[in-house]
Amino acid sequence: MSTLVTLGEAMAVVAATQPGPLGPGTPLRLAFAGAEATVAIGVSRLGHQASWTGTVGADSAGTMILDGLRGEGVDVTRARVDASEPTGLMLRERRTPDRTRVTYYRRGLAGARLSPDDVDPDLVAGAGVLHVTGITPALGEAPRAAVRRAVEIARDAGVPVTLDLNYRSLLWSREEAAAELTELVAHADIVFAGPEEAALVVPEATPAAMAVALLELGPREAVLKLGARGALTATPGAVHVQDAVPVTLVEPIGAGDAFVAGYLAGLLDGGSVAHRLRLAATCGAFAVSVPGDWEGLPRRSELDLLQGDDVTR
Amino acid sequence: MSTLVTLGEAMAVVAATQPGPLGPGTPLRLAFAGAEATVAIGVSRLGHQASWTGTVGADSAGTMILDGLRGEGVDVTRARVDASEPTGLMLRERRTPDRTRVTYYRRGLAGARLSPDDVDPDLVAGAGVLHVTGITPALGEAPRAAVRRAVEIARDAGVPVTLDLNYRSLLWSREEAAAELTELVAHADIVFAGPEEAALVVPEATPAAMAVALLELGPREAVLKLGARGALTATPGAVHVQDAVPVTLVEPIGAGDAFVAGYLAGLLDGGSVAHRLRLAATCGAFAVSVPGDWEGLPRRSELDLLQGDDVTR
Amino acid sequence: MSTLVTLGEAMAVVAATQPGPLGPGTPLRLAFAGAEATVAIGVSRLGHQASWTGTVGADSAGTMILDGLRGEGVDVTRARVDASEPTGLMLRERRTPDRTRVTYYRRGLAGARLSPDDVDPDLVAGAGVLHVTGITPALGEAPRAAVRRAVEIARDAGVPVTLDLNYRSLLWSREEAAAELTELVAHADIVFAGPEEAALVVPEATPAAMAVALLELGPREAVLKLGARGALTATPGAVHVQDAVPVTLVEPIGAGDAFVAGYLAGLLDGGSVAHRLRLAATCGAFAVSVPGDWEGLPRRSELDLLQGDDVTR
Amino acid sequence: MSTLVTLGEAMAVVAATQPGPLGPGTPLRLAFAGAEATVAIGVSRLGHQASWTGTVGADSAGTMILDGLRGEGVDVTRARVDASEPTGLMLRERRTPDRTRVTYYRRGLAGARLSPDDVDPDLVAGAGVLHVTGITPALGEAPRAAVRRAVEIARDAGVPVTLDLNYRSLLWSREEAAAELTELVAHADIVFAGPEEAALVVPEATPAAMAVALLELGPREAVLKLGARGALTATPGAVHVQDAVPVTLVEPIGAGDAFVAGYLAGLLDGGSVAHRLRLAATCGAFAVSVPGDWEGLPRRSELDLLQGDDVTR
Amino acid sequence: MSTLVTLGEAMAVVAATQPGPLGPGTPLRLAFAGAEATVAIGVSRLGHQASWTGTVGADSAGTMILDGLRGEGVDVTRARVDASEPTGLMLRERRTPDRTRVTYYRRGLAGARLSPDDVDPDLVAGAGVLHVTGITPALGEAPRAAVRRAVEIARDAGVPVTLDLNYRSLLWSREEAAAELTELVAHADIVFAGPEEAALVVPEATPAAMAVALLELGPREAVLKLGARGALTATPGAVHVQDAVPVTLVEPIGAGDAFVAGYLAGLLDGGSVAHRLRLAATCGAFAVSVPGDWEGLPRRSELDLLQGDDVTR
Amino acid sequence: MSTLVTLGEAMAVVAATQPGPLGPGTPLRLAFAGAEATVAIGVSRLGHQASWTGTVGADSAGTMILDGLRGEGVDVTRARVDASEPTGLMLRERRTPDRTRVTYYRRGLAGARLSPDDVDPDLVAGAGVLHVTGITPALGEAPRAAVRRAVEIARDAGVPVTLDLNYRSLLWSREEAAAELTELVAHADIVFAGPEEAALVVPEATPAAMAVALLELGPREAVLKLGARGALTATPGAVHVQDAVPVTLVEPIGAGDAFVAGYLAGLLDGGSVAHRLRLAATCGAFAVSVPGDWEGLPRRSELDLLQGDDVTR
Repeated sequence: MSTLVTLGEAMAVVAATQPGPLGPGTPLRLAFAGAEATVAIGVSRLGHQASWTGTVGADSAGTMILDGLRGEGVDVTRARVDASEPTGLMLRERRTPDRTRVTYYRRGLAGARLSPDDVDPDLVAGAGVLHVTGITPALGEAPRAAVRRAVEIARDAGVPVTLDLNYRSLLWSREEAAAELTELVAHADIVFAGPEEAALVVPEATPAAMAVALLELGPREAVLKLGARGALTATPGAVHVQDAVPVTLVEPIGAGDAFVAGYLAGLLDGGSVAHRLRLAATCGAFAVSVPGDWEGLPRRSELDLLQGDDVTR
Repeated sequence: MSTLVTLGEAMAVVAATQPGPLGPGTPLRLAFAGAEATVAIGVSRLGHQASWTGTVGADSAGTMILDGLRGEGVDVTRARVDASEPTGLMLRERRTPDRTRVTYYRRGLAGARLSPDDVDPDLVAGAGVLHVTGITPALGEAPRAAVRRAVEIARDAGVPVTLDLNYRSLLWSREEAAAELTELVAHADIVFAGPEEAALVVPEATPAAMAVALLELGPREAVLKLGARGALTATPGAVHVQDAVPVTLVEPIGAGDAFVAGYLAGLLDGGSVAHRLRLAATCGAFAVSVPGDWEGLPRRSELDLLQGDDVTR
Repeated sequence: MSTLVTLGEAMAVVAATQPGPLGPGTPLRLAFAGAEATVAIGVSRLGHQASWTGTVGADSAGTMILDGLRGEGVDVTRARVDASEPTGLMLRERRTPDRTRVTYYRRGLAGARLSPDDVDPDLVAGAGVLHVTGITPALGEAPRAAVRRAVEIARDAGVPVTLDLNYRSLLWSREEAAAELTELVAHADIVFAGPEEAALVVPEATPAAMAVALLELGPREAVLKLGARGALTATPGAVHVQDAVPVTLVEPIGAGDAFVAGYLAGLLDGGSVAHRLRLAATCGAFAVSVPGDWEGLPRRSELDLLQGDDVTR
Repeated sequence: MSTLVTLGEAMAVVAATQPGPLGPGTPLRLAFAGAEATVAIGVSRLGHQASWTGTVGADSAGTMILDGLRGEGVDVTRARVDASEPTGLMLRERRTPDRTRVTYYRRGLAGARLSPDDVDPDLVAGAGVLHVTGITPALGEAPRAAVRRAVEIARDAGVPVTLDLNYRSLLWSREEAAAELTELVAHADIVFAGPEEAALVVPEATPAAMAVALLELGPREAVLKLGARGALTATPGAVHVQDAVPVTLVEPIGAGDAFVAGYLAGLLDGGSVAHRLRLAATCGAFAVSVPGDWEGLPRRSELDLLQGDDVTR
Repeated sequence: MSTLVTLGEAMAVVAATQPGPLGPGTPLRLAFAGAEATVAIGVSRLGHQASWTGTVGADSAGTMILDGLRGEGVDVTRARVDASEPTGLMLRERRTPDRTRVTYYRRGLAGARLSPDDVDPDLVAGAGVLHVTGITPALGEAPRAAVRRAVEIARDAGVPVTLDLNYRSLLWSREEAAAELTELVAHADIVFAGPEEAALVVPEATPAAMAVALLELGPREAVLKLGARGALTATPGAVHVQDAVPVTLVEPIGAGDAFVAGYLAGLLDGGSVAHRLRLAATCGAFAVSVPGDWEGLPRRSELDLLQGDDVTR
Repeated sequence: MSTLVTLGEAMAVVAATQPGPLGPGTPLRLAFAGAEATVAIGVSRLGHQASWTGTVGADSAGTMILDGLRGEGVDVTRARVDASEPTGLMLRERRTPDRTRVTYYRRGLAGARLSPDDVDPDLVAGAGVLHVTGITPALGEAPRAAVRRAVEIARDAGVPVTLDLNYRSLLWSREEAAAELTELVAHADIVFAGPEEAALVVPEATPAAMAVALLELGPREAVLKLGARGALTATPGAVHVQDAVPVTLVEPIGAGDAFVAGYLAGLLDGGSVAHRLRLAATCGAFAVSVPGDWEGLPRRSELDLLQGDDVTR
């Protein structure tokens, strides 16, 4: 049985439960998040093995993250507790139902201590797919080297590499990001991007045109995530289109990572591009139907909940 | 003053207050529910007398149910506490805003101990209307016999019988249900059904056609509940159509029972089919504007809240 | 730097946090409200000085109001604690997401003890704008005299007077209100009204026609607030139209006062009618995106949140 | 079966759920309260009939009170809705775990419209006991007359009259109270008082001495409530002492009324003074173990919970 | 590294978060519980391997239990999902801070489908200790046989067997329990009991005398749990006494299972009886300092929190 | 009217509302804290002027802090927004009711950017008292220099300097702290310390002996805070003792800073040492009666709440 292997940062999330400015007495809820961790959880819930590599602090937040991932069936035996720094934290204000504002406490903290030594060569070389994002290289030299090392091992072993550009403007400039991400795209088999992210590495154009342009940089598939307008995948000679699954939106957080989780689970299913896109769109729909980054991700048995009629009783 | 008499099961409801999968620490809220109890509350709030017959356990849930109904003005002097089993319970997960998943703890418990002996012949024979549903016969032999007994007494006394098919797939198969419900329809004066429920007893067709087909089985009115598309009533030679009342949907639970409550209150008002349908649609709109099965049901003085403009200040 | 000066009543708000009828155990949240206080907060958050004059009781609610306004940067040095009566209170039921019902406890209480002696002539004469509403005169003779006194001082000093009709049917009849408000309109430079309020003082017609008719009573600007349909301002010879800013509605409370705050901040900015309307519409959008009367009002740096794309990460 | 008949005021309670000063965003919980209503609920939960007479407004709070009492099995068929004024309200700050501060909104409101016409002579003359408190006469002339009328009817009919002095310093002065309460004591068969209350009508002394002194004014029993130190009853020639039942204190609200409820239920049981005191002390212990005025009152079957060991599983 | 192996039932817990009777709107919190699961979690948190065998339903509660245990590091690879019945559920009312009342929904449900086939002989034979309780045999014939089978395998393999009598009066009579538990005691190496439980199998006497009497039935250690009075262990020729660790009590739930977890972790540490008792008492203290059955159990690094001074900052 | 001037760090607090380990879904509450800010609020609530100098980030937490202090009547016109770094944050786990664990996110963040340039010489020279703590010098070179600068200005102007040692082991070692604090003590007029803190600068001994020893380093008063055992003040030739005020403890956070606030308000009152100690002890009692660092601090009018009997009604 093939496994998703991913590596990256995970941090505590302290999020307002109601829309409005933060102030004394504002109710908050603790959670954790990380783009790669979300993908690992999503893939695990859909029935495939997933392994997450990363570094957390020797504190309550670090314990929460490792216990949480393990509880979700994600292999964390390669994750490392680094007692020298606290686990990172994100304070998330929900200024309006659709607009969040975030303060990061992550620079130089435990998650940024990921280094090439944390990458287990045997794990990566034996993976069904290696998934990386554009967040990790933005965290510092060591994390960037860790991603490069993992990608190198995977390519040498013939393991497919998938990359979500995931540009974070609070971590690096568009110029820095463009340079690093262009290089990573060249080594990836499948690339995921939103339209603004794609524009970092290919000329701005229609989503379909940007997807096709991404293919020319090396990948065999380029997937454009278009939010409420759905998604599309470019493969050599074809563009596959997928509508969004209509739902009552609760919180727009985590939709992109959920989409990738569904797509990669579909890949591990051995399914067609259409199968992957459909699974990806369904996972995105579940994610925005529930508060939190990953909490709403579906198990395989739940997928039809968002297709048939309500079966309340 | 004429009275609605109804009988059935009521149970504790333990419901998630937010969308998402259930897990350790998930906040829940206690309530109670039961299709017939909801109808009785709705009729009482609209100013008519209502009486509920049923069996509950000698526990906190049973006390909650009887106190709750009494507080709402429903006569529970014929309800019975059966100390041999606990009151049933329903654990309700709100997987997404619009999709709930339910685990029942009701099989063989207090609510299923309703028997013909619990039916008060004088109460039924003196009622303005007897209301039964397709849930009670699905609970076991004794409850089924209780319903049949009540219907028999009502018919002998010339009391109108109303029936909501209320098919529950977790309780019995479509085949079992079809047999029993077809028989009950034949003894009812007014039948309520959703399109899928109607298809249990008449050939599948358009709602209007199914309503007309239901009339041929015996009832003088057949009411099809169509959710967001409204409702329609078939009477000999006519089909009356009602639009849904537009509202901001909070929780789709309980709309059907609220609709029936409004319809029956309109019947006890002595109103026309159009009056009943309008009252029914308004009650349904109130129900889905508030969390819970029956909590949002309107009092007579509140009906115009969902018709005029907001009168906030 | 010019200052907004306003005077009026503020009271405690005890509001249900969820839709539904009030009952034992219903969760409530404490807040405070007052049309003029909301305007002062909104103007202060947008970077202008604002001063509020009013009377509160020597109790926890009074302390909450003065501390709250001071915390928001509103000058409350002219507010007065009147120990003879408790601060007023409003119990607000959210019967459905869009329909609230209010019980007032304000008649004869601290807020109604505002009198002409509370008006600081130097403060008013030195203001950039004096803002009053049609609520204060409805509270009693003394508050009515206080408003008249403030308006008189402002006019004598050449300070622009703005008036929000703010008709409250629970406080006085349409006849009483029409008489008093017509008089106040005649002394105002800018008048704000909803269509039903405008109809108190000019013949009922289209919003634009009513705005033009208001101009004939004296003001140089008449602003009609049209809710989801936006707003319009009539000036001599012109009608300026503004669309509403689209948002996910959370609670429709406080939109009108937020609109006025934005309009007056735009006025103190020295901006055009178009600038004021745009700012007003944006403030209204923020207000309905957050629970509460004024809590959602934007700071200057937040205004673009409701214009650009989400910048969640 | 004999019945407790009582009359008085009930009002909405808006109470902080946590200790601390009130401020914007403070979570509150809605409830209702009234000394006589609490006694009626307590007696009903212990299995005797109870009837409450009073006046509430035509608003959500009034509905909550009548539904709540009816749900608890209290007869409210003699209660009256008075649409001319809102139901009274009490805002309760829990400044520290043991110190509450209250703002009343009750003067001249619905509860104070109770009048002699509201007293049903047949109900009172047929009662097993009539219970009144010193709060009602403090609300105004009409309520005072209502209490006098009820007492008069009871005495004429040979129905025992019980009186809880219940002095409220926010409603009247010690002088006014002393005059009225001394008169009421003279017509009562059983009097309840705390030490400070007793000192209004008899010379200050030890509790036992004050109880004996009260007997000389007319009653055949005088009960002194001593909080954590228990209680004592003076009867001609004897003083009966009762310890408090030890519990973990949650909120000290409502203990006195709970005590009276237990005492009167014991009286209706036909029990000895010792039986009444024990039941009274147990009810007081339940009351302070649960937040709220009356919510914690025990049913008969629960009494042994505070005597044996925990039977958690 | 040696492992604790245990087997038993786990079920959903729906518990009131505040003291008071259950009623409509009562806030509840979801959790899961099971005496053996708690022991496994406690041992795992203290750094030893633990494995739990049991059967859960194919529903949200079952998923919650398996994910929760896995997240806590407990091996659940031998647990089984049985789709034929729902996972059991316990509704827990906190009637007062110290008195809970429970309604069980467990009879014949998934947890009771544990059978000898679920016992993995290799797992048991390789364990460091096998822990069983008196709850499992009370659930039915198959669970009873499963416990017997596990004990037999352990004894044959020389694995120490520990037994917590854990008598549950709602599940079986004292007579039935006495017969079965006496037999199990005879096969156990270490027995845990409260005084009332010990009295099921040995003559009632002082705790120390009962512990010594238990030794005569076969075990080499008998541990009496005495709540706030601490605990004692009888070994051949000695009685070891342990005081309770003083804490602010939050909820008395789960103390006994926490005690056992600490004792068994101390056993796996290879520690003395004194070491085990001290660890057991500390775990019990943590358990009652936090709401829930197992949530408060300490990790090894937290143990000194309840010994030194607060190190808040 | 003389003023308290203080300077230091304030940061966001994200605190668990219930005892237990942090985990996904744990409810948290936002607040802010800072030893000097707490003292300023306490002094302001007791009716004296207070001014706080410090640096916060250009984010929601910074806005919350400045608005919160301003709302409490503290002058923040000398506080500075430093847009280069986020406001610090403290994640506070309440592991048991009495044991908290804290993760700091403050190193190098906005609060640590306080520098001598932030100290307003005129403000300090005109103060009634300058209050500093041992926390600020632990934050870095610039904050340490700021404290030294403020102390120097005060001494030159004859303004009394008060110092709370406030040792924070997470910020610096005992050795570093001892060196810096010994120097500060030498320049202070009044020194506050707990016994462990005092032992940093004088030989460990009894509290009274340590207080006397502190006097020898320069101050004219040395105040030892002893928690539940009260406090004592050494002055030349005398030791004044104060018992703690007994209360129901809710949360032990903030007691020390509340004590200092009371003591300094008593100083600004011009009161005796006994007056100061009594006020200090009462403030400490209020602080631990309410959750949060400063929320429970008393206003002057509330002081008698913790002395007389409850005056609930």
